[in-house]
Amino acid sequence: MKKTNLDEMPCPIARALDRVGEWWSILILRDAFYGVSRFDEFEKSLGIAPNMLARRLNGLVEAGLLERRPYQTKPVRYEYVLTDMGRDFRPVMLALMTWGNKYFATEGLAMFLVDERDGHMVDAVLTDRHTGDPITRENHAMYPGPAASERMRTRLENNIARRAAERAAAAMEKRA
Amino acid sequence: MKKTNLDEMPCPIARALDRVGEWWSILILRDAFYGVSRFDEFEKSLGIAPNMLARRLNGLVEAGLLERRPYQTKPVRYEYVLTDMGRDFRPVMLALMTWGNKYFATEGLAMFLVDERDGHMVDAVLTDRHTGDPITRENHAMYPGPAASERMRTRLENNIARRAAERAAAAMEKRA
Repeated sequence: MKKTNLDEMPCPIARALDRVGEWWSILILRDAFYGVSRFDEFEKSLGIAPNMLARRLNGLVEAGLLERRPYQTKPVRYEYVLTDMGRDFRPVMLALMTWGNKYFATEGLAMFLVDERDGHMVDAVLTDRHTGDPITRENHAMYPGPAASERMRTRLENNIARRAAERAAAAMEKRA
Repeated sequence: MKKTNLDEMPCPIARALDRVGEWWSILILRDAFYGVSRFDEFEKSLGIAPNMLARRLNGLVEAGLLERRPYQTKPVRYEYVLTDMGRDFRPVMLALMTWGNKYFATEGLAMFLVDERDGHMVDAVLTDRHTGDPITRENHAMYPGPAASERMRTRLENNIARRAAERAAAAMEKRA
C-alpha cells in the first residue's frame, strides 16, 4: 500500500524512493558499485538473511536497477549487475557518502572518493552542468513543472514567493 | 535492532541511512527544504497519520537534522526547522530528484531546479570541488580509509585491483 502511494505522487523524489527507499536496497546498490555481483558475496558483505536478500535483489531487478544474468550452468548461478538506471544512481550514493563522512565519521574516514588519474581525494559537490556554478540555497530553488500536483505547485510557489520576499527585504536593508 | 546494526557499520553510507533511511523521513526533509515547518502543514502535504508523523519528526530531531522550536504560546505550538546537518542533506535530495526526473517523470516534469539569478533550469551534476571535473565511473572510485572494517577494506581493494586490471587490459588492446 505504501509502495503504491509513493509511486502515485508526481514528485520525482517520492518516485525515486519508491524504487530504492529502503536501507537494504541502498546498501545492496552500494556493494554493487564496488563490484559485488554474486548472491553469496552480497550475503557475506551485508550480513543479511538469505530470504531478505533474495527479496531485495528481486525488488531491484523489478525496479530496473539491477540485471540478473547467469554466470555458470550446472548448477545455474546468477549474478546481479547494475543497469544504466542503476549506475545513474551513483551520484545519490556519493552525495550520501559525502554527508555521512561530514557528520558521522567519528573514528576517521572509513571510505572516500579518489580521482584515480592522480590519486587525489575528491570533495564531491553538486554543480550546474552548464555554468559550473555550485548549487546553493541562496541561488537555487525547486520550481513546479507541468506534471506537478496542485498541492505541490502551491507548496513550491509559496516557497518561491517567500524567497523573493526575503531577497527584497535583504535588498531594502542593504540600501538603508 | 536493524537501527543499531547500521550505525555500527563503519560505512558512511550505512550511517547516513541510519539517520534518514526511511521514506517518510526523506519526504519530510523534502518538504522542509521548500519551507514547510509546522506539524499540520507536514500532515496535509504528506497525507500521513499524525502519530506516524510525530514519530518521524522526533526521529529527525533526535538525529540532529531538524530543530524543534516554539512559534506560539497559549497554546504552545512548535515548528520544525532544518539544522546545518539537515541543510547539508540537500545535495542528496537534489541527486535523488535528478535521478527521479530522468527515469520516472513519465507525464513530464513535476519539479525541477532553477537558478533564480537568471531563471534557467539547472542540470545538477556532481563534480570535484577543487578541479571542477565531473565525477565519472572511469576516473573515480571509493578507497578505504583508516576507519574501514576489514571486510570493507578487502571489498574496496578488490574493486580497485579489478579496475586497474581493466585499465591495463584496455591499454594493451589499444596498443595491439
